[in-house]
Amino acid sequence: MCRWLAYIGSPIFLDEIIFEPENSLINQSRRATYSSVTTNGDGFGVGWYGTRDMPGVYHEVMPAWNDKNLRNLAHQLASGLFLAHVRASTGTDTSRTNCHPFRHDKWLFMHNGVIGGYAVIRRDLERMIPDDIYANRLGTTDSEVFFQLLFSEGVVEDPIGAYSRTVGKVLQVMRAWDITEPFRMTSLLTDGKRVYALRYSTDQEPPSLFWQPQAERLLIVSEPLDSDISHWQAVPAQHVLVTERHADTVVLPFQAAA
Amino acid sequence: MCRWLAYIGSPIFLDEIIFEPENSLINQSRRATYSSVTTNGDGFGVGWYGTRDMPGVYHEVMPAWNDKNLRNLAHQLASGLFLAHVRASTGTDTSRTNCHPFRHDKWLFMHNGVIGGYAVIRRDLERMIPDDIYANRLGTTDSEVFFQLLFSEGVVEDPIGAYSRTVGKVLQVMRAWDITEPFRMTSLLTDGKRVYALRYSTDQEPPSLFWQPQAERLLIVSEPLDSDISHWQAVPAQHVLVTERHADTVVLPFQAAA
Amino acid sequence: MCRWLAYIGSPIFLDEIIFEPENSLINQSRRATYSSVTTNGDGFGVGWYGTRDMPGVYHEVMPAWNDKNLRNLAHQLASGLFLAHVRASTGTDTSRTNCHPFRHDKWLFMHNGVIGGYAVIRRDLERMIPDDIYANRLGTTDSEVFFQLLFSEGVVEDPIGAYSRTVGKVLQVMRAWDITEPFRMTSLLTDGKRVYALRYSTDQEPPSLFWQPQAERLLIVSEPLDSDISHWQAVPAQHVLVTERHADTVVLPFQAAA
Amino acid sequence: MCRWLAYIGSPIFLDEIIFEPENSLINQSRRATYSSVTTNGDGFGVGWYGTRDMPGVYHEVMPAWNDKNLRNLAHQLASGLFLAHVRASTGTDTSRTNCHPFRHDKWLFMHNGVIGGYAVIRRDLERMIPDDIYANRLGTTDSEVFFQLLFSEGVVEDPIGAYSRTVGKVLQVMRAWDITEPFRMTSLLTDGKRVYALRYSTDQEPPSLFWQPQAERLLIVSEPLDSDISHWQAVPAQHVLVTERHADTVVLPFQAAA
Repeated sequence: MCRWLAYIGSPIFLDEIIFEPENSLINQSRRATYSSVTTNGDGFGVGWYGTRDMPGVYHEVMPAWNDKNLRNLAHQLASGLFLAHVRASTGTDTSRTNCHPFRHDKWLFMHNGVIGGYAVIRRDLERMIPDDIYANRLGTTDSEVFFQLLFSEGVVEDPIGAYSRTVGKVLQVMRAWDITEPFRMTSLLTDGKRVYALRYSTDQEPPSLFWQPQAERLLIVSEPLDSDISHWQAVPAQHVLVTERHADTVVLPFQAAA
Repeated sequence: MCRWLAYIGSPIFLDEIIFEPENSLINQSRRATYSSVTTNGDGFGVGWYGTRDMPGVYHEVMPAWNDKNLRNLAHQLASGLFLAHVRASTGTDTSRTNCHPFRHDKWLFMHNGVIGGYAVIRRDLERMIPDDIYANRLGTTDSEVFFQLLFSEGVVEDPIGAYSRTVGKVLQVMRAWDITEPFRMTSLLTDGKRVYALRYSTDQEPPSLFWQPQAERLLIVSEPLDSDISHWQAVPAQHVLVTERHADTVVLPFQAAA
Repeated sequence: MCRWLAYIGSPIFLDEIIFEPENSLINQSRRATYSSVTTNGDGFGVGWYGTRDMPGVYHEVMPAWNDKNLRNLAHQLASGLFLAHVRASTGTDTSRTNCHPFRHDKWLFMHNGVIGGYAVIRRDLERMIPDDIYANRLGTTDSEVFFQLLFSEGVVEDPIGAYSRTVGKVLQVMRAWDITEPFRMTSLLTDGKRVYALRYSTDQEPPSLFWQPQAERLLIVSEPLDSDISHWQAVPAQHVLVTERHADTVVLPFQAAA
Repeated sequence: MCRWLAYIGSPIFLDEIIFEPENSLINQSRRATYSSVTTNGDGFGVGWYGTRDMPGVYHEVMPAWNDKNLRNLAHQLASGLFLAHVRASTGTDTSRTNCHPFRHDKWLFMHNGVIGGYAVIRRDLERMIPDDIYANRLGTTDSEVFFQLLFSEGVVEDPIGAYSRTVGKVLQVMRAWDITEPFRMTSLLTDGKRVYALRYSTDQEPPSLFWQPQAERLLIVSEPLDSDISHWQAVPAQHVLVTERHADTVVLPFQAAA
């Protein structure tokens, strides 16, 4: 289990969101409160959209609380759409290539959760990735596989449909191998304009997911950044939050494709 | 605050002590129980005596639970006297040079605790280190300063006396600067034969220190490696445990030199 | 292109071979002389057989010349069969999981060279790896793929035959994709007793490979460890050197399976 | 010996200068041509002035050519005044705290060269650093000592005078210890507006230093970034180049204070 956040709004410096809140992601990396795993020290990453065609990414294997570069970068970088993720490995290696967010073209993706039985079905999942996408597979995580599979399901044209079909395909493979462990996911996908945050699980224990709309900005988080819970809304299980810069946010029911 | 252990006995593979116990040091690096700081993820180190003149040391900035090299090395290395330390920084950088145990000639030293007001008195403490010892100062911690000061107080000939005089000198500098924060220390010093483990503090809250004598071996630890507390004896505050390979262990009262 | 060495003989400390020679592997990591690529600074690794069932491995992403842990370990560790490898990436990431030697059960493998067109044919090569072996694939290199393929070709029972069939299969895939770049390899494979060092290429430029038999020991190296070339014998292209602890060394012609 | 560059002009993305030129700093990190040390793989750093009060810094121990984060950051970050440095250690550790540029308040400093006999006179040099500045000493290099000494000599009010007095003081200490090795330095100091690049040595072999003025920008480099040498002007030995954003550049004779 990991912890993550996303910010959408007028450009601000990253440290205002990543470092300064009472229950900041950096504090969560040491001691998360909405998670059975309290330490998220198995690497971290940041992704942000600036003025370039491609978003920037920064990955590091040290715990987020220990990396002075992160503190310096988050103090200098400003962005109107950025993501941050602290990792607690569910079995795969701690390496930069296994750190979120993952990037493909303009797309960023980050994930908290686990695909049940991944060690067993990894190979079947990888087989479904198109050749040209697979060429960019750098790590070994289930999260990266899921991200790459989205592209085989037409994520560029139809993100929610691709989400639905990809979850459906994963479930198919899990069934084929008689996996009884759950598939749990809170993930966030964006192309720099549209943002899709999914909360889903096959059991009754989906990872937590909250959001906080304000006048000119939106926060989407694994757990509230402060203790005033009343300011945060939970995304219900089997729902996807959809938003776009300068547009309304909706929370829609989500169903895996059959 | 950090966590550490030392093993003295017939040679065994390091992983038997570092990885295998119920409350192993690796588990303590994620979640220590006898400490206000639960995560000890700011680097770690191992020191061991083998067949060479000098002991070996291995330092790494990643959390101990994440380093596959440590797991491999601890599985291969056997030693009759070894130390391991997981670090929770009290302010100084996470770098290999700040990781314990520190080495000078045949001597190893590791420490849990803090010299109150260190940021203020660092310089005065460093001034007292002899030139030839100071040339080996590689990091910035209070622990390394203390270790180096021991050599200016004759640790080679009189380890307990040197301990006493060094603590006394640190207290002098603290007084000169009107430091009111406590000086707390559980530290272990060895030349490969004799072992000195000190529990000391200027307030009523010395860090914990335990030991477990068995037929052919001795363990000295920050906290018990298993839940059966009855097998472990606490070293009282202001005491120093002294032992030698193949010799008796004694726990002596300790007093800082005036 | 990388540089590597292997030692077989009576147990000695690793630094005697890795650090001390005039043209040591550490010096080669900064400035190799028998290679178009002079700097081998993209990570390194050591593998050694001790008293445990499994060999030890140590991998690090820093250049070998910069890692104090390597210097310390090589000074402490003694072994009668060990391997060391400094890496110059041919395209894949610098990560610990891409560092040689690779390990599977008792087997170690290290490689210098490149499979032509690997970025194109990676996937087809990976498809031929058996499921249970593939589950241990941690990195993304061609070297690791080749090592894993050896196990699908019966390396345990027939190492040279497996070498031959695996090279043959790689060539098949290269032909199927019309790859015109060469396949070049000097690799070393061992189970802790038998050692197989292959020099092979599809063009006229196989990487260099030398060996030096002495009274009680054998060195196999990418390039001589000293300037007295007369002490070193070149393994001819398309040949495999075979040796066993306490047994004779032979150099046999090698042919890829059709 | 190290390699470095500085850019002053209208804001551009860092990769345009750091990565794209024919003889870019990244290429120099693998193979420098104006230096006896060809590999500069002992860590690197970048410093840049943005919209914040303090400049940003990024330090990493891996070779610059290997760090994907650097490539990503340099592609995203734009600045009108930035520095980059690839390190070849002259003896001190490879750690982030020993990487240039060093920062103090608004000031950045980077250095190529060596203070002769540093291991011997380190302590006397450190003694001259004011307490409040010394509290920020994080590493062990001669470069950081020199930077900190500048503040004891009034660098804020009189940078060239401080440079002159600091060099003078270093020479005094060297004389006091009968150091016969040379003091060689090409260093760059800036507060975000004014820039001072010094080329100095006590022997006839000062490290190289070049600059290239263009319409709206200025480059100051250890060695030319392309093979068209005619576009680059050498700063003579014992001279300091002084410039300011949107102002003329002058190259002045430099003399160490007596």
